[in-house]
Amino acid sequence: MKPKSVKTYAPATISNLGPGFDTLGVAINAPGDTVVARRRSEPGLGFSVVTTNAGVPLDIKKNVASYVSTLLINEKHPSFGVEMILHKSMPVGSGLGSSAASSVAAAVATNALLVKPFSKADLLPFILEGERLACGSAHADNAAPCLLGGGCLIRSYDPLDVVPFPIDSSLVWIVVHPDTEVLTKGARTILPEQIPLRSAIRQWANVAGLVMGLAEGNRDLIRRCVEDVVAEPLRAKLIPGFDDVKKAALAAGALGCSISGSGPSVFAIASSMARARLIGAAMTKTFRLAANIQSTGYVSRTNVIGARIVWRRGS
Amino acid sequence: MKPKSVKTYAPATISNLGPGFDTLGVAINAPGDTVVARRRSEPGLGFSVVTTNAGVPLDIKKNVASYVSTLLINEKHPSFGVEMILHKSMPVGSGLGSSAASSVAAAVATNALLVKPFSKADLLPFILEGERLACGSAHADNAAPCLLGGGCLIRSYDPLDVVPFPIDSSLVWIVVHPDTEVLTKGARTILPEQIPLRSAIRQWANVAGLVMGLAEGNRDLIRRCVEDVVAEPLRAKLIPGFDDVKKAALAAGALGCSISGSGPSVFAIASSMARARLIGAAMTKTFRLAANIQSTGYVSRTNVIGARIVWRRGS
Repeated sequence: MKPKSVKTYAPATISNLGPGFDTLGVAINAPGDTVVARRRSEPGLGFSVVTTNAGVPLDIKKNVASYVSTLLINEKHPSFGVEMILHKSMPVGSGLGSSAASSVAAAVATNALLVKPFSKADLLPFILEGERLACGSAHADNAAPCLLGGGCLIRSYDPLDVVPFPIDSSLVWIVVHPDTEVLTKGARTILPEQIPLRSAIRQWANVAGLVMGLAEGNRDLIRRCVEDVVAEPLRAKLIPGFDDVKKAALAAGALGCSISGSGPSVFAIASSMARARLIGAAMTKTFRLAANIQSTGYVSRTNVIGARIVWRRGS
Repeated sequence: MKPKSVKTYAPATISNLGPGFDTLGVAINAPGDTVVARRRSEPGLGFSVVTTNAGVPLDIKKNVASYVSTLLINEKHPSFGVEMILHKSMPVGSGLGSSAASSVAAAVATNALLVKPFSKADLLPFILEGERLACGSAHADNAAPCLLGGGCLIRSYDPLDVVPFPIDSSLVWIVVHPDTEVLTKGARTILPEQIPLRSAIRQWANVAGLVMGLAEGNRDLIRRCVEDVVAEPLRAKLIPGFDDVKKAALAAGALGCSISGSGPSVFAIASSMARARLIGAAMTKTFRLAANIQSTGYVSRTNVIGARIVWRRGS
């Protein structure tokens, strides 16, 4: 018995995690995007957006939620149409995987209405097309953990190879989103096409150490491995106050601190919820004092479920 | 009660493990180098080498064993001298960590004679000076696993940060040493100073996936992650028959196959001892048929102990 209507939630994600540019991502609990979708007799997709955020595309061909949903509908040719409302609460260009969250929420909702739905993992290629539309490249380091939950290593894009990895449940994530925008496309073009072999070696040692440290909850190891010698030095200058915010996070006891995705959000890792709240407060305060920027902080354990169906109705 | 004489054994090591250039290494059980050392009344070091191998430096200032032992003696100024015999059974320039094995066997032997010895881990900086003498750079990806055993991630050289990592005990290593020499210095200079960011990203994803796969004994993951897009494509041409040998190893069921260290030895990973023997036989046969080169194969589980004291006598 398939539902006639469904509500889905897809969470924010922190990608890169310091050294793991384009390869590591983790899902957190909030913020996130919500989609409500229902079957309708008229074929194709009806789409509307509820949001107070600037910069959200309202055009059915340009919003990633409607774009990805349309791809699924065109693939499965259901005997019904879909009416979809995207409740877009995540800020655009935040470095929190905003586009992935919309794509994933829409894909999971549309899929839930289908008579013969895809498996969750098989939705990923459609969602990556949403990422391509939004960011110019089909990067999976937000999309995969947003869909699947937990930590994800994107081992390869050709063929797509997503490797889930465990994250010790004691660890707590902090993300602070300053009220300023960095476009993923711009943050990507700032990176060079070639990097020194010595930097690459240091980076892959840190990536390997970080996945070990996160799995074991090894705080000392995490502390040493959240070090990005490739992207952070170039991207930090796009985020007003970054250096001070990072210093404040570490001074408040963060195990590590770096840019979330392509920024401007900044993430940190803490060894307890109480410590995470102190770190988040120090970071938002520093954005205000050092760069005169208002910011919003989120504190969350790892979201091990990923996108979920909030409710389903009818049959 | 300190011994008057001691015999030590330091094992061969496989470094890089495919993608982990300069960062990953693992100790195996054989081959290895042996040192016998005893206290003597005359101060300083007396040194001799027993070997049938070509290319082993006999000069006390040029052999890494005597060089590292002298560094230790100069650091600790013992009231006695040391008479040392290096039984050099490992081939020079093999890609099996031959210089590290000699350095480690000598360091552990000399240290065992001291009244106030160093901890095992504190010997590493001295051993790295031996690597610098032998290879032109103080690389630790052979020295650390040779000394400490198991798998080692060299997270950083400045400061030195060695992270041991677990390797599932079901896994078996194969190393085949062809009777041809590749000098580490030459194999290093063939590598470019800059590499494409895209290659670096693929490499760090593989390095992270490999340490996960080795820890979990995840055969499918290991199979995908033993992929080196940085060093192997350039170094393979230095090893006659490499492409055929690799194909033969994979056809015989190897989980992965690449160059051991800077070569010319080639390693493979197997999921059982019986399978490993078949793979080793296929690899040595292929070196003979494809490149007319005699080779010696070694099959070993992970050596989790590293260098060890074989016996100690006197007090």
